[in-house]
Amino acid sequence: MIKTGVIGATGYTGLELLRILSAHPGVEVCLATSDAEAGRSLAEVFPSLRSHTDLVLSAHDDPAASGCDLVFFATPNGKAMRRVPKLLDAGTRIIDLSADFRLSDADSWARWYGETHACPELLDTAVYGLPELNREAIKAARLIANPGCYPTAITLGLLPALQSGIIDGDDLIADAKSGVSGAGRKTSMVTQFSEAGESFTAYGVPGHRHHPEIVQTLERFAGGRIDLVFVPHLVPMSRGIHATLYATKLDTDASVQTLYENYYREEHFVDVLPPGSHPGTISVRGSNHCRIAVHEPGNGRRLVILSVIDNLVKGAAGQAVQNMNIMYGLDEVEGLTFPALVP
Amino acid sequence: MIKTGVIGATGYTGLELLRILSAHPGVEVCLATSDAEAGRSLAEVFPSLRSHTDLVLSAHDDPAASGCDLVFFATPNGKAMRRVPKLLDAGTRIIDLSADFRLSDADSWARWYGETHACPELLDTAVYGLPELNREAIKAARLIANPGCYPTAITLGLLPALQSGIIDGDDLIADAKSGVSGAGRKTSMVTQFSEAGESFTAYGVPGHRHHPEIVQTLERFAGGRIDLVFVPHLVPMSRGIHATLYATKLDTDASVQTLYENYYREEHFVDVLPPGSHPGTISVRGSNHCRIAVHEPGNGRRLVILSVIDNLVKGAAGQAVQNMNIMYGLDEVEGLTFPALVP
Amino acid sequence: MIKTGVIGATGYTGLELLRILSAHPGVEVCLATSDAEAGRSLAEVFPSLRSHTDLVLSAHDDPAASGCDLVFFATPNGKAMRRVPKLLDAGTRIIDLSADFRLSDADSWARWYGETHACPELLDTAVYGLPELNREAIKAARLIANPGCYPTAITLGLLPALQSGIIDGDDLIADAKSGVSGAGRKTSMVTQFSEAGESFTAYGVPGHRHHPEIVQTLERFAGGRIDLVFVPHLVPMSRGIHATLYATKLDTDASVQTLYENYYREEHFVDVLPPGSHPGTISVRGSNHCRIAVHEPGNGRRLVILSVIDNLVKGAAGQAVQNMNIMYGLDEVEGLTFPALVP
Amino acid sequence: MIKTGVIGATGYTGLELLRILSAHPGVEVCLATSDAEAGRSLAEVFPSLRSHTDLVLSAHDDPAASGCDLVFFATPNGKAMRRVPKLLDAGTRIIDLSADFRLSDADSWARWYGETHACPELLDTAVYGLPELNREAIKAARLIANPGCYPTAITLGLLPALQSGIIDGDDLIADAKSGVSGAGRKTSMVTQFSEAGESFTAYGVPGHRHHPEIVQTLERFAGGRIDLVFVPHLVPMSRGIHATLYATKLDTDASVQTLYENYYREEHFVDVLPPGSHPGTISVRGSNHCRIAVHEPGNGRRLVILSVIDNLVKGAAGQAVQNMNIMYGLDEVEGLTFPALVP
Repeated sequence: MIKTGVIGATGYTGLELLRILSAHPGVEVCLATSDAEAGRSLAEVFPSLRSHTDLVLSAHDDPAASGCDLVFFATPNGKAMRRVPKLLDAGTRIIDLSADFRLSDADSWARWYGETHACPELLDTAVYGLPELNREAIKAARLIANPGCYPTAITLGLLPALQSGIIDGDDLIADAKSGVSGAGRKTSMVTQFSEAGESFTAYGVPGHRHHPEIVQTLERFAGGRIDLVFVPHLVPMSRGIHATLYATKLDTDASVQTLYENYYREEHFVDVLPPGSHPGTISVRGSNHCRIAVHEPGNGRRLVILSVIDNLVKGAAGQAVQNMNIMYGLDEVEGLTFPALVP
Repeated sequence: MIKTGVIGATGYTGLELLRILSAHPGVEVCLATSDAEAGRSLAEVFPSLRSHTDLVLSAHDDPAASGCDLVFFATPNGKAMRRVPKLLDAGTRIIDLSADFRLSDADSWARWYGETHACPELLDTAVYGLPELNREAIKAARLIANPGCYPTAITLGLLPALQSGIIDGDDLIADAKSGVSGAGRKTSMVTQFSEAGESFTAYGVPGHRHHPEIVQTLERFAGGRIDLVFVPHLVPMSRGIHATLYATKLDTDASVQTLYENYYREEHFVDVLPPGSHPGTISVRGSNHCRIAVHEPGNGRRLVILSVIDNLVKGAAGQAVQNMNIMYGLDEVEGLTFPALVP
Repeated sequence: MIKTGVIGATGYTGLELLRILSAHPGVEVCLATSDAEAGRSLAEVFPSLRSHTDLVLSAHDDPAASGCDLVFFATPNGKAMRRVPKLLDAGTRIIDLSADFRLSDADSWARWYGETHACPELLDTAVYGLPELNREAIKAARLIANPGCYPTAITLGLLPALQSGIIDGDDLIADAKSGVSGAGRKTSMVTQFSEAGESFTAYGVPGHRHHPEIVQTLERFAGGRIDLVFVPHLVPMSRGIHATLYATKLDTDASVQTLYENYYREEHFVDVLPPGSHPGTISVRGSNHCRIAVHEPGNGRRLVILSVIDNLVKGAAGQAVQNMNIMYGLDEVEGLTFPALVP
Repeated sequence: MIKTGVIGATGYTGLELLRILSAHPGVEVCLATSDAEAGRSLAEVFPSLRSHTDLVLSAHDDPAASGCDLVFFATPNGKAMRRVPKLLDAGTRIIDLSADFRLSDADSWARWYGETHACPELLDTAVYGLPELNREAIKAARLIANPGCYPTAITLGLLPALQSGIIDGDDLIADAKSGVSGAGRKTSMVTQFSEAGESFTAYGVPGHRHHPEIVQTLERFAGGRIDLVFVPHLVPMSRGIHATLYATKLDTDASVQTLYENYYREEHFVDVLPPGSHPGTISVRGSNHCRIAVHEPGNGRRLVILSVIDNLVKGAAGQAVQNMNIMYGLDEVEGLTFPALVP
């Protein structure tokens, strides 16, 4: 049994981790923390966990963390980096679901996240936890930067075409849509039911923190300079990301459909749909799958790729558990085999 | 491995059965049928099942059914009763999720369901599959009438008080609310998104088929004559039932809270919440739990009981799997331990 | 032109007032206030008002209020009572959409609203602004207590039967459901999209502030002692209240349907539906109507009344404008003739 | 008073026309038709119209149509073209909200709508009813082709930049999102609440009927060849269209913001938001406005335009009434001055 802790257990990614880990046969959750709710039982905060856990929340700085084999950080950005160095020294492995270790450039991180990075020396050590691209590095990692939700959907959608050279990396558009849980479990006016319900809106068009993360990954894994326009939108639903990706095709005779099918043939969690498909986000709600469809509409100059995930599962907690499975040599799908909840 | 079949696999209860059974370690699903979709693969009809099943749908009258140990009927009302006698003769056990065997009186059945019953002689043999009331009979049953969704939430909410004699059975009100999936997976105007969304409405106030089922169960298990007003409502959400139950208290010094806690102390799937609680349906979405809260507001003359379930799980497919576990001597919670999907 | 001001213009009732008043031919809005947003234009805070108003928000204590003929208070509870006495002295008439003047008993008010009332001497002067019951008093009123949303739906549903003596006032149940906008325009966890969406829950079962208001009105207008159990619920939709009302019938040969139709025959905004109807809240979304259906299910011992309104219109801003029309001798329906927005 | 008729009154655009016309001071609705519901009163079919109309539905071929000054067709595609020639001969003017007269090329129409056009000789006579582009022609028109919902949002968003030559017409992307009411008021599986709710999906990527309409308008009003990729998506909300438009900028020093503001300065119904804005569809729900925001993110190579409308108002019935006002010399905003319904 892997002894794990969840730092920041009362946000949506924390809750989702606990949901998944509670049914994982190889894991024991020994620690769940929340500064705001310390002292209350998890089941009191989340009635959905009644009969599933007896854990009582402790404060974030609970020293028990260093007794865990593995600690998940599901904290707001800027928290994990203050705690990670000591935990690594204590021999604890880390999967950070926040953004603290996603950018390898400390200056870029500071610019996007509004403060100086607390441990820039670890940015190169951290392994970007997108298993489909980076499985070997994950196996040996002591510190995983779990990818953002938009970056997961967009990177998985674009990389096969980019790496094979059939599209122009200098001219990419990612029109992405997210359910409201992507904004986290905190009160705000824009995510109030009466504000976000029955409306659809773009946000962050001038710039969004996930932009440099996506570009960094595409450049690292596909090579070449990437020019990407990324526009996120808020959808009146709780879960799900749908990325509609546009790329200009370069001259090629290759079947894009075949290319994608081959690229992901061995990947359990990436599903390339038959030609002509339109994946709905509900087809992955609660599951760790990414479903992708490939289109070449009209005159065929453009490639249109549709990529859907559950932002809390493949876009956060499910991917974290997938990374854990890889790090500990478990079956990669262990604890992640549940189908989506439909309807 | 129990060899099972699902007759009527393309409705919401059929899909939910397949979702649950796909993760159940003791079951093999050998057969899934649909007259409308026969010949297509299940994963083609339900993309959420891609990578979870290779089954191809066959027609309802597929003779392979009689080769199964257990057959689930998730068909519209009036279908199972035509097929069940032969399957029983062939030694197959049956769990019927439709209403065909829920009423023990054939005349009443004919009145509410609009046709003569095809095998009235089996109505007495059928065991009402509410495990918390009827576990012993379920163990030996060859034919289970799986309860309706409203009856499950309402019966579990009322029985402890009724059986203990602290409320008046002659004066009960069940104000019940259901998500739209309760209407099944078929096209209709009232369940169109633009009709059912952003609206709340009662329906069936003059009479609803679940009324005689609820009264029959309450009278059978609590004794005495029951007078119940039952008003169902449609809620703009996909899943969930919330029953708000009103009863007039008889003179008693008993603590109703303690009574309920004791009544369900050994029941894994019935959760009596602490005093002052208000369970939300999302706390059981996708799970097999029923959560109950007990209130005595104002002058205390009235008992108000709040009871929530997921209509497709504890109100249909999850309860069916719970019955199966009991029938086959498995751990009753096997395959049903997943927490609710929140948010 | 009536010169009006809206104190508290940035909540949902304030916004709804501005929406309705902007199309009212007999009214000029001279003042809109908000402490938090003072100095910003209304159209900046609410893009939906762009091109409809040039008003700039001023602070709540803007002395311009006393220059208005009529001031609407759409402030949180406890604000209006501190300001009203001086405005009345200045000759300004008041319609208070908050709860400050709804209860005639200062002790009861203090108990439910958690502070001593600031001007208890005005509680008797204030006129309860439910036009269908109180039209004559409203005509001459200088201070209107605009009814709560639940009380409007429930009172209009119960009064015809209560006043005619065909039901027992000592045994009433109001199972009421409200859209999320009923909680006001402020951030809170329970009204976050991901918390309130796809869930249904009761709240306030032990006691709710609208309970004494409902009882006071029923007792005042129907006579006799009222015993009412009132259970509110939160519905995953923005607007709308649905009250399901249960009463025990006394011996009578009267047709309840005819009784209700006659009672409201002259009322433009109360619509008694044909027998067998089930009004949906969307049928009044954005309109000032209350739609009512009357049922006597089963053995006919119980009367079940369904009553729907838009909580922000007939339950707040629309009713306030209706009161204004009456106070100023305008056509009562002026500015309120728009049909509901469906779908 | 203009005597009008609505052919096809029981779809969502028909209902929306009736809602708007019922409050229009210069119009009398003399006729409303529906083959399926002929003989029933409108208020029976749509309870939201109770007290707003006494009209009884007649069949589509009701000869009373030719006695109207103006007839609106809100019928499914392929119906209006069979009826229009005779009505024009009778002197009746026509606004067709279906697609029958939107494409000027009969072959293209036949290809996209699956049948031969019934009166190709009228395709050139029909005036495309987008007032902001075509006001002069509309004034004199006898037959208006009311634009599609997607084309309205996309054309209004792209034309200022296209006509001024600052973007490349050969490289346009329109990523558009629509509420479910865009699919019309008919039963279908994909628009069932439990299918469309809590999901987001693209559809029609290989080709959509609005594509040739958009291209035709852009080419006609901006000149030059247009290459447009158009991807529509379904949003879990009832009303609203959000178009996210991507274009490659040509060398220019012009301020795009100023360009757009100037272009629409005199247009009451097109609102260019301040720099940095993100319009939500709810800000136009129920109103006839189109709100537009202009962005040049990142390196500024791309223009990103956000354009929102209510698909049933500016995208259908409101625009039709705007056209009527122009045709009859009324104030263009008559009957269309109501603000959006928020929340």
